[in-house]
Order: sequence, then structure tokens, then C-alpha cells
Amino acid sequence: MPLLVIGGVAAGMSAAARARRIDPRLEIVVLEQGPAVSYGACGLPYFVEGRVRQAADLVVYTPEYFRKERNIDVRTGARVTAISHPRREVTLESGARVAYDKLVIATGARCQVSGIQGVRQPHVFTLHTLDDAERMRAFLLERKPRRAVIVGGGYIGVEVADALRRNGLEVTLLERSPHLLLRGDAAFTAAVRKQLEANGVEVRCETAAGVIDAGGVDGIPCDMVAIAAGFHPNVELAAEAGIHIGRSGAIRTDDRMETNLRGVYAAGDCAEVTHLVTGRPAYIPLGTTANKCGRVAGANAAGGRERFAGIVGTSIVSIFGMGFATTGFSVEQARAEGFTPVAARIQAHPRPRYFPGAKTTVELVADRASRRLVGGSVIGEDGAAGRIDVIAAALANRMRVDEFEQLDLAYSPPFAPVWDPLLVAAQQLMKDL
Amino acid sequence: MPLLVIGGVAAGMSAAARARRIDPRLEIVVLEQGPAVSYGACGLPYFVEGRVRQAADLVVYTPEYFRKERNIDVRTGARVTAISHPRREVTLESGARVAYDKLVIATGARCQVSGIQGVRQPHVFTLHTLDDAERMRAFLLERKPRRAVIVGGGYIGVEVADALRRNGLEVTLLERSPHLLLRGDAAFTAAVRKQLEANGVEVRCETAAGVIDAGGVDGIPCDMVAIAAGFHPNVELAAEAGIHIGRSGAIRTDDRMETNLRGVYAAGDCAEVTHLVTGRPAYIPLGTTANKCGRVAGANAAGGRERFAGIVGTSIVSIFGMGFATTGFSVEQARAEGFTPVAARIQAHPRPRYFPGAKTTVELVADRASRRLVGGSVIGEDGAAGRIDVIAAALANRMRVDEFEQLDLAYSPPFAPVWDPLLVAAQQLMKDL
Repeated sequence: MPLLVIGGVAAGMSAAARARRIDPRLEIVVLEQGPAVSYGACGLPYFVEGRVRQAADLVVYTPEYFRKERNIDVRTGARVTAISHPRREVTLESGARVAYDKLVIATGARCQVSGIQGVRQPHVFTLHTLDDAERMRAFLLERKPRRAVIVGGGYIGVEVADALRRNGLEVTLLERSPHLLLRGDAAFTAAVRKQLEANGVEVRCETAAGVIDAGGVDGIPCDMVAIAAGFHPNVELAAEAGIHIGRSGAIRTDDRMETNLRGVYAAGDCAEVTHLVTGRPAYIPLGTTANKCGRVAGANAAGGRERFAGIVGTSIVSIFGMGFATTGFSVEQARAEGFTPVAARIQAHPRPRYFPGAKTTVELVADRASRRLVGGSVIGEDGAAGRIDVIAAALANRMRVDEFEQLDLAYSPPFAPVWDPLLVAAQQLMKDL
Repeated sequence: MPLLVIGGVAAGMSAAARARRIDPRLEIVVLEQGPAVSYGACGLPYFVEGRVRQAADLVVYTPEYFRKERNIDVRTGARVTAISHPRREVTLESGARVAYDKLVIATGARCQVSGIQGVRQPHVFTLHTLDDAERMRAFLLERKPRRAVIVGGGYIGVEVADALRRNGLEVTLLERSPHLLLRGDAAFTAAVRKQLEANGVEVRCETAAGVIDAGGVDGIPCDMVAIAAGFHPNVELAAEAGIHIGRSGAIRTDDRMETNLRGVYAAGDCAEVTHLVTGRPAYIPLGTTANKCGRVAGANAAGGRERFAGIVGTSIVSIFGMGFATTGFSVEQARAEGFTPVAARIQAHPRPRYFPGAKTTVELVADRASRRLVGGSVIGEDGAAGRIDVIAAALANRMRVDEFEQLDLAYSPPFAPVWDPLLVAAQQLMKDL
């Protein structure tokens, strides 16, 4: 009986490919409800924008590739409607049944907004699958909309705002909470808002969308709507099969990515992982995590013994050429997690002053009692990705601020100043601790 | 009696400034033999090139600033010829004596080549001080040399090669050893050589300079010579005063930057520091280390109690727009340090394949027995600084390869692929361990 994987995007195909490496002769079946597998979902906004020319460019490997080159039986258009673990089989929408020995659940997530009327209209889009992106791109090219409203100020929302502005649309972005990019951080939100507004996006926070009609959203006129809110893990199949769901609403797993049912693993946007800063389960669905956890789930399902230590929640988004990067917790988030946060936020040149370049903003957040770093953010035109990754490495290693302050970072005038902005922030934070 | 600092560039002025913060009323005297203090020596090649317009742009603070704003008695043109610790005083070239209570030795280093004849000619330069750079820039502008020979293939050598090529000169670079950039790494050397040659620099390794005359160097015709070799710590004053010199030839210190003489500290290009990968003293003179150690020396000399944990030897150099970054040890260096190194070197796109961009090269070096990372290098047009800093943070935290492989690094198509080149290298290395 095969190793069965439900879901063929990031986590699912990572699991299948890794299982194949572990056991060259294992029977492996992947059931994907959509028409494509193994695509870079994070590239969808760049296809909508037009920077990525063809949807096919986002596809890393085709089903045919997996079948022929990896001997993995990938079945697209195969929607699973039930898991029966006692019988070790799943039921498809077609009524067909597929038996399994080991199971990897990689059912991902969906956009599901409640409380908005009129989401099922031809000019209303989500941006979750390759199909979604192709529909949206075709609409842009064929219908030439002039005004768009985006519902949701998370990563996808601001990326779509960027993509649509570059296509010449007027864009209004609505966010229900007071904050943008899920950070719960007023200063960070203000920086995001400033960058969006400087590039012509109208931003309305604390504004929930209500009614979408042909003319607009709640009276805001538009001829196109993108819903980028209500991200929910797809856990119904798992829950009905008796798999434990965590407090976050996603599937609970151990550090081998195994659920409470022996031989059943979960990974990707449907699953929790351990947050290394708290040691507790967290639900932070990101493509990197999906790939890493998928690998571990696939390895273990194929008889290996691998471990996924956890995440620190690192992410970055480009907004009109500026990088907005975060890792760990903001002050507000750290407080909610039970820390007593102290933070320093500095602006510093990313190169010596005699070289041109706009300032980079770095915030470091530490826990007062332990002096451990618990989070940080970096905003900058260049170098933001590298700098947030250094903070991420520090969080993974539970570094204290005084240790971080002495990191031996690279210095040369074309790349960085003698006191890197990261170290300047650490020095400032040391004064406040 | 004052806190006395010998040397007023990176380490010396960091020490003085930090001491002032620790003790607002302490008498602080800085003796600098040259005419300027507190300049960014690493910016000198960019002044020679012309990208930095004025030498004054490299000066962070003037002696007047320190006197007026920080109440630090900075004396330029003050060359110390002897230290008498029993009498707690130093003697200047002028014969004057200056007493001290605590002493910070920040005498730096010099270029001192032996075995080359003819180094004292008007067309022969070193690039160590602001004076040197001004002389070299003036020579370029006034004498319009057409061909240059550079002696030494370390950081300064390749930076000067870059600067002179951009001024239209034909450039030949001579390096005595088989390797460039001090890495003892054939593949790294080959990459450096390729980049230099692609930009018109003739490179000759295993070629020691012998005789410089008006027409050239050992028969290689040129009308300008830059010596960028023979970097030696200035330890004579310290040694004559009874201060212990380490096996590297630089001043030995403890983790408070104190020498064997109580109350006498040393920092910067004249001093050893602990290498965090080996736990042993090392001499890796870099501007960042000088600033950090200077701060610690100054704090402790002023009555504070600070510690400098050590370095991992991170550096980066730009060669015609390409970043060449290293940290920790190469395979050859690791073996010499007693490790059993295993390395993986990969080339990978720094962004998803559907975004343009040349490949980045990453090498990771680990110790077979402990699986600990002991070094790495990154070569790339962008992102090299950030990526080497992540490896540097990993070295400082003694991370194993399997831990490094799971780092939660930022992913977004404009910045990085879902599997960052760092993680691809770690996966490759895991297979080889």
C-alpha cells in the first residue's frame, strides 16, 4: 500500500519528493484537487503584475515530470472527501477509494471571508491558486479595469496592491484591523502605509468590507475586487478523521510532523509548527515552512527519522521596491506571548555615510528578564532580506542582545558600514535594558 | 592622571569615545602620530578611485570635534617612542612625557615588505593612511600614469586594482602565494582571478616582486606601483615595555582586551582576539573588530567591566561589483586548525528562477566529527553580505549543519528563493557528512 499525499503544492510535493529519495522503491501517490502541482504560490502576484510572463514559469515541475522522472503517481483533479484511518483509505469526490499505508496531509489553506456579501461575482477574485492568478491576469488584460479595491492588508493584499498599481489601476486597500502585515505594530504599520500611499494606494485601516456590488465595495467605486483576507487552514478532512486540531485552528503535529494518528503526518499551510521563541505551537503559514515541513513529513512517512525543530516566523515583502521584513514578535505580540518586551528602533545608513543610499530602519525586541531577543523588523531598499535573516538566526539560537551586539558581521563600504544597522540597534537596545 | 590612548584611528578613537561615555569626568588623552584621527581606512580605495570626492568625507570626526564635544584631548603629530609602565608614562618623539593611569594601545599596523628593492620612490605607494590615499589620488590626477603594478593580492590589493582600472590604467597584480584574498582556497582564488581578469586586470600568483625601478617591477613595465602586502602589527612599543606578544606576532590580550600589564589594554590592528571557532587567539585585523575591541578596551580602562567574546573572521570585498565574502575557515585553513573539514560548494539562483539574476556561489565548511560549521564563503552580485552574515551568526552560535539547514530565512520572490542558496548548500553538505 502506498504512501499517500493529499495536496500537491509546496508541502505535498516536498513530502513526495523527499520520500522518494529516502526509499527509491516505495509506492507514492499524490492526490491534488487542482490541475497543477508544485508551483510557486508566492510568485502569483508577479504573474498578475506581468513581470512573470507565463503561469507555466511558476510551475517548478509538472505532474509528468514527477511520474516519469521520480516515479511518483501524481493525480490532478483528485479531490479527497473523506479519510478513514481505521480502513487506511481515502475517498475521492468521484467515489473512488485509495488505500494507504502512511498518509501525509498537505491540504493547504483557503481564503474564506465571512460577512462580506457579493464575493461570487466575475469581477471579484482571490489569489490563492494558479487558476486564480490566471483568471485575474486575464481580467486585467481583457476587461481593462480602472479601479480596484483590495480587501485585506496582509502580504498578499499589499503585493496585489503593488501589482495592480503597476498595471495603472487606482487602488484602495481595506484592512479590518488597525494594523498592516499582521504585525500588530503601529510604527511598522505607519511605514507600510507611507510606502503604499507614496505610490498612490489609498489605505483604509479599521475598515471591514461589507457589500460588494457591480459598482464597488460599500460605495467605494471600483470595477475589480481582490479578496486577500480570511486565510483559513483546510483541516476539515483531518478533523473528521479524528486528527487533533490545535488552538490556532490548524492541525497539531509533533516535531516529526506526525499527527495524533500514527502514520499520519501533516505539513504546510494546514499545520501548526513549533515557534522557537516560545517553544509553543504556532500557525504561521509560509512557503518556506511548507517546504521544510513537507520534507520532514515525507522523510518520516518513508521510514526515515527526521525532525523539524521549528520556525521563528521570518518573512519579507516588497512594496514598490522597498523591503519590509519581520521575524519573531513585535512588542505587542511579545507581550501577548507573556514576555516583557523592550524594543529599540533605529534608522541608520546601510553603507558608510560617504556612499549614497537611503536609511534602513531596524527594530529589535528583547525580553527584559532574560535579555533574549524575541523579534525584529527591517525596512530598507536593499539589504533587508540579509539583515532579517541574521536576526532570524539569532532567534533560532536564543541569543541575548549583548551577544548579538558582538556579532562579527561583514564590513566593506560598498556593502555595509563599520557598525551595521543591526549592531547600532543592538547598542541602542542595550542602553534600554 | 589620564586615561591615555596611543593611536587615534578606529580602535583608539572607539576606546576614547566609549571611555567618555562610561565616565563623563575622566581625563582622556589621545596621541596620534598622523595628522588626522577617526577616519574610515576601509574607504581609502574609494577615495583613490574618485567615488569618494574628498578625503575629508572619510573623516568621521575631527580632532576639534573630540576636544569640544567630547572633552577628549586629541593630540595629532604625537608619535610615542617609548612606554614606561613602572613610571606610568610614555615618551614622545619630541622628548615630552605624558603620564597615564590607564593605557590603551591602538598602534595599528603597517605595510612593511622585505625583500623588495626600490620601495622608496615617488611612484611607489602604500595605502594605509589618509595621507597615503591623498598622495596616490594626487599622483593619478597630476601624473596620469598609464600602467600600474600592484604587489599583494589581499583585500587592499584587489580594491586598488578595481580603483585603478576604473581610472583607466592597465593593471597587473602580483601575489606571492598561490592564493588570493588570504583564503588558501583554490576554487575561491579561481573565482577572484576570473572576476579580475574579466575586468582587465592581469593576475600573476606565485610571483614575488623583486626590484622596482622607474620603468617597472621586475621588467613588467609600469609608471606606478602600489604595495599592498606585508601587513604587520605595530607591536614594538608594547614589546619593549614588556607586554606579551602572541604567536601571531600581535599583542596578546584577554577577553577584557587587557594585556599582561594590569591597566594596559590593546585593541585594533595591533592586537590578537579570540577566534570563536577555535577558541584560540587569532590575528585577523579588520575595521569592525578594531571598533568593537576599542569600545571594550575603552570601557574597561574607564572602570567598566565589558567583555569581547571574539570574532569569526567575517569579511567582504567588492571586485568590479561582485561581492566576495568569507567567514570562519576554508577547508585548507580548517585542516590547519586541526579540524577534519567537509565542504559543499553550490551555485544557486539568489531568487526564484522566474526572476532574473546571476547565480550566487555558497560554500559551507563543517567539521566531520562534530558536524559544526567552521566556515563559509559567498560570491554574488547581490545578497553576498547578508548571506555571509547569516553564516557568521551561525559560527558565533556553534551551529551544526543540521541546525543551520532548518534556519527560518526570509522568502519572497524579489529577494530570495524558497530554498535560499545557504540552505541548498547545507542540504548538500548534509549528504556529504
